[in-house]
Amino acid sequence: MSEQIGFIGLGNMGQPMAQNLLKAGYALRVYNRSSSKAESLVTQGAQPVSRAGDVVEPGGIVVTMVANDSALESVVSGEGGFLERLGPNGIHLSMSTVSPATARKLAELHAKHGSMYLAAPVFGRPDAAAARKLYISLSGPQAGKERVKPILNALGQSVYDFGDDPGAANVIKLTGNFLIASAMEAMAEALTLAEKNGIERSKVINMFGQTNFACPIYQNYGKTIAEERYTPAGFLLSLGLKDMNLVLQTAESAQMPMPFASLLHDRFMASVARGRGDMDWSALAMGVSEDAGLQK
Amino acid sequence: MSEQIGFIGLGNMGQPMAQNLLKAGYALRVYNRSSSKAESLVTQGAQPVSRAGDVVEPGGIVVTMVANDSALESVVSGEGGFLERLGPNGIHLSMSTVSPATARKLAELHAKHGSMYLAAPVFGRPDAAAARKLYISLSGPQAGKERVKPILNALGQSVYDFGDDPGAANVIKLTGNFLIASAMEAMAEALTLAEKNGIERSKVINMFGQTNFACPIYQNYGKTIAEERYTPAGFLLSLGLKDMNLVLQTAESAQMPMPFASLLHDRFMASVARGRGDMDWSALAMGVSEDAGLQK
Amino acid sequence: MSEQIGFIGLGNMGQPMAQNLLKAGYALRVYNRSSSKAESLVTQGAQPVSRAGDVVEPGGIVVTMVANDSALESVVSGEGGFLERLGPNGIHLSMSTVSPATARKLAELHAKHGSMYLAAPVFGRPDAAAARKLYISLSGPQAGKERVKPILNALGQSVYDFGDDPGAANVIKLTGNFLIASAMEAMAEALTLAEKNGIERSKVINMFGQTNFACPIYQNYGKTIAEERYTPAGFLLSLGLKDMNLVLQTAESAQMPMPFASLLHDRFMASVARGRGDMDWSALAMGVSEDAGLQK
Amino acid sequence: MSEQIGFIGLGNMGQPMAQNLLKAGYALRVYNRSSSKAESLVTQGAQPVSRAGDVVEPGGIVVTMVANDSALESVVSGEGGFLERLGPNGIHLSMSTVSPATARKLAELHAKHGSMYLAAPVFGRPDAAAARKLYISLSGPQAGKERVKPILNALGQSVYDFGDDPGAANVIKLTGNFLIASAMEAMAEALTLAEKNGIERSKVINMFGQTNFACPIYQNYGKTIAEERYTPAGFLLSLGLKDMNLVLQTAESAQMPMPFASLLHDRFMASVARGRGDMDWSALAMGVSEDAGLQK
Repeated sequence: MSEQIGFIGLGNMGQPMAQNLLKAGYALRVYNRSSSKAESLVTQGAQPVSRAGDVVEPGGIVVTMVANDSALESVVSGEGGFLERLGPNGIHLSMSTVSPATARKLAELHAKHGSMYLAAPVFGRPDAAAARKLYISLSGPQAGKERVKPILNALGQSVYDFGDDPGAANVIKLTGNFLIASAMEAMAEALTLAEKNGIERSKVINMFGQTNFACPIYQNYGKTIAEERYTPAGFLLSLGLKDMNLVLQTAESAQMPMPFASLLHDRFMASVARGRGDMDWSALAMGVSEDAGLQK
Repeated sequence: MSEQIGFIGLGNMGQPMAQNLLKAGYALRVYNRSSSKAESLVTQGAQPVSRAGDVVEPGGIVVTMVANDSALESVVSGEGGFLERLGPNGIHLSMSTVSPATARKLAELHAKHGSMYLAAPVFGRPDAAAARKLYISLSGPQAGKERVKPILNALGQSVYDFGDDPGAANVIKLTGNFLIASAMEAMAEALTLAEKNGIERSKVINMFGQTNFACPIYQNYGKTIAEERYTPAGFLLSLGLKDMNLVLQTAESAQMPMPFASLLHDRFMASVARGRGDMDWSALAMGVSEDAGLQK
Repeated sequence: MSEQIGFIGLGNMGQPMAQNLLKAGYALRVYNRSSSKAESLVTQGAQPVSRAGDVVEPGGIVVTMVANDSALESVVSGEGGFLERLGPNGIHLSMSTVSPATARKLAELHAKHGSMYLAAPVFGRPDAAAARKLYISLSGPQAGKERVKPILNALGQSVYDFGDDPGAANVIKLTGNFLIASAMEAMAEALTLAEKNGIERSKVINMFGQTNFACPIYQNYGKTIAEERYTPAGFLLSLGLKDMNLVLQTAESAQMPMPFASLLHDRFMASVARGRGDMDWSALAMGVSEDAGLQK
Repeated sequence: MSEQIGFIGLGNMGQPMAQNLLKAGYALRVYNRSSSKAESLVTQGAQPVSRAGDVVEPGGIVVTMVANDSALESVVSGEGGFLERLGPNGIHLSMSTVSPATARKLAELHAKHGSMYLAAPVFGRPDAAAARKLYISLSGPQAGKERVKPILNALGQSVYDFGDDPGAANVIKLTGNFLIASAMEAMAEALTLAEKNGIERSKVINMFGQTNFACPIYQNYGKTIAEERYTPAGFLLSLGLKDMNLVLQTAESAQMPMPFASLLHDRFMASVARGRGDMDWSALAMGVSEDAGLQK
């Protein structure tokens, strides 16, 4: 008989991830704030529940993939949350992008109840999630890692372990998004400089994507930014702003300035103020073009 | 009988490039400001000359690989320069990193004398030059490109053609160095944030170098910046500052701001002011660590 | 018979302010977290109390001058706070530098209890407070303003009314500190440029302080920065960092980037990371000198 | 009989300055590239000449007030320039805003011909020039300063002497314009933050202009930026960009970064790229409003 696990958060990412767990043979109880999102999973065999706390049996495993820090805190320790029910030997496999501070705080809370908090945020967009191609950074108590291994293998292509600190995996996730945003701004400036010198944007990224920067971020976002197609959004620009704020808060706690992050924050903020929060976060490049006097 | 070509500039890059031309069967006349640099090439069959103008016969080909804009202008049109001698049908294959403005100016000068200026700056360090692994961006009059093709093939692994504008290939070269510097600063900030959160720098770049950023710049400079080994220099930090100034001048002519480039300029400048001009340009990361209060 | 008022917060600023109220004939009950600070005031006639809530009678007036947002929330609505006791017709004259968001939140809380929250943060250092030379920005319900007028006149030289929004006066206070910090950074860069050109720092600020910038901030901070005397602190650099964070949070809520504020934040943060949090906030200029390669 | 002096450059500033010299009793020979500008001065008694070199007798005094570095070099040592004619004991009183590097170079050139170069750039707009209210920074050989004293007194309200280095007075002029631009950006950010919090822009600058920042720059530019009236231009935004470039070049020579100057450069550049080069340089504030999502 297959192991039963709880899954909370059925958005663009959670949906295909839950599906992969079903395919891998897990019995799933699913919860989402707006229950309509659970329907297609239910037709595939998942069992819907109406309170977060009902997804799991004492000592079981809950996977969460929710929108932000407060949504996560709410399903854990808010009204109807699963914290008390999970109890001794229970594992919370937390895969959302949240702040290291929130991760550390929730880890303490779980510890008090005898359960374990494992941070396992992921890299990849919904199509990568569907294809089990996610990259996963993992941290938290060693004891729990062995048990969740098959689950992680059903969701992603590789797992990187960053030790015991429950905040560590989230630091990694945030630095990853910071590196991506930095690469996007750099490409936007570079391609605009080329354009203003009469060179076709696509030819430039084509060269770099085949040579020094032959890797997914430069190839994929490079193409988007070269072609200036910022809708539909793969990842909302407003979430990009949220993540830069998490990066800056984490830097604040660690006592260090991050000048590129400050600049990226300001770029995203100006983009949101100009009404681009619902475009793809690569639309930060529109600000670069405008500041160059290019009307698109 | 093998074709004769002239080669000017026998520094860290020019030396192995000239050698590859000899190996490919070209008869070389070589010139370097300090003539001692020519010695090892002479033992391999190159013929040294004492004036830049003597490296070439009328209508021939001259390859230049010199330190900067003024050195290039000097060997072309300074005293003893090759401009007048080169004459009709002659080709100047200019492979140094110089400003697009200088390239355009020299191209006009050659056109007046009936010769052609081809811009062909390269990506790669001395070991890549020795291994014929350079990437080459090319621009200038189409007529000349066919004739230099075998030469470029003897020097690099691929050539990207950016059209007629003699400045275009140099714009590409500068945007490339700008992208690299941006990646280095972003990695420095990311790794320092990780370090201040108790995570080992090398583990972070190890993950990203295998996943989203699985490309040479992030793998190689990532390793350097993770291990904080900034000597010996592969590319001098003082030259990094020079290149950021070329980027900013090109942006000035094109009328656009480049905020990342401004910030990188300021980072390199502070590094030079603190006496790090002779370290590798990845030593810009030391400033990130210092601003985080880390004493190394 | 003189009116009785409560006064909470007897730090560097609160001390001389409370004294001026005594001199103006008010009967003062005073509270401070560490009660020893009240001693000198008690010898001058103030009556010490041991709980914040005891400084005031129902319907009375409480003046607060505490360190930060959480200290303010604590004396208002924390254990032993004065909120419930103050009640209908009571006035809380809040003179600390806190965020507009906190001010708005506390104003609502007071409204629920029938009392009024008036924001009245001040500009000036302890010596200005002692000399009744503070500038005061005021906002909140009009009804309360008439009643506190004599109190404000006993404390400062002029009052500027910014309307009903209880957050407005704090926005003004934060923009003021932002303008000061901007002027300090600008002066630091200007004087260092002069110094590196062989010009004496003091001569430069002497000219500007007598001409285009003949106003207190440039004259006083200009002298400090020219002479590079950053101790003892008039205003702690760590509080400067705190205030830049308040500025940036307020800008975040208002949805706008503030690039100068981002840069100042990063400058203050690097200064704190290097161990300068206890120096005067004008010590941000040390970072400018260091980045210029000057060892002091 | 009145002393004869030459005056070159009859633009917005030069015109009223020349007029004041006539009123002070000097016999003027005047030269301007486009001769029509001389007409009104001629009716007041000035004698027009058609070559720069004709404004002065050997050993005399020439005052220059031209647009930029190259215009200055042209009237000095270009065809028809006054350098050779000026000769031993001659004084060139150079009042334009040029780079310290140009000043130093011209000073050497004069020294070779036995004449003296005095740098005396001015602070103030055309109305201040007309009213003899200019502030003047002065540097160069002491020997010449005594002789030009009455001329400077006829032009401005005070003179600040910065020693022998002919570049020093221009460093001062550039730092002054940098301080002004910094103050404008800071005010723009501050007033926009207030506006987005529902506070009237004018009320904010009204308070600060009466208190901590009670000086001309904050009062005058503060009013302009509060009211957002950026035409007609008192000082062209395109010249503001030019001056920030001079500041950055001077910092480059001195080996120091100036992060505020870099940011101001980028702000001015984006403003020029968006077509605002002919507005007043305070129109940099429009970029702040736009980035805040405010359409004006």
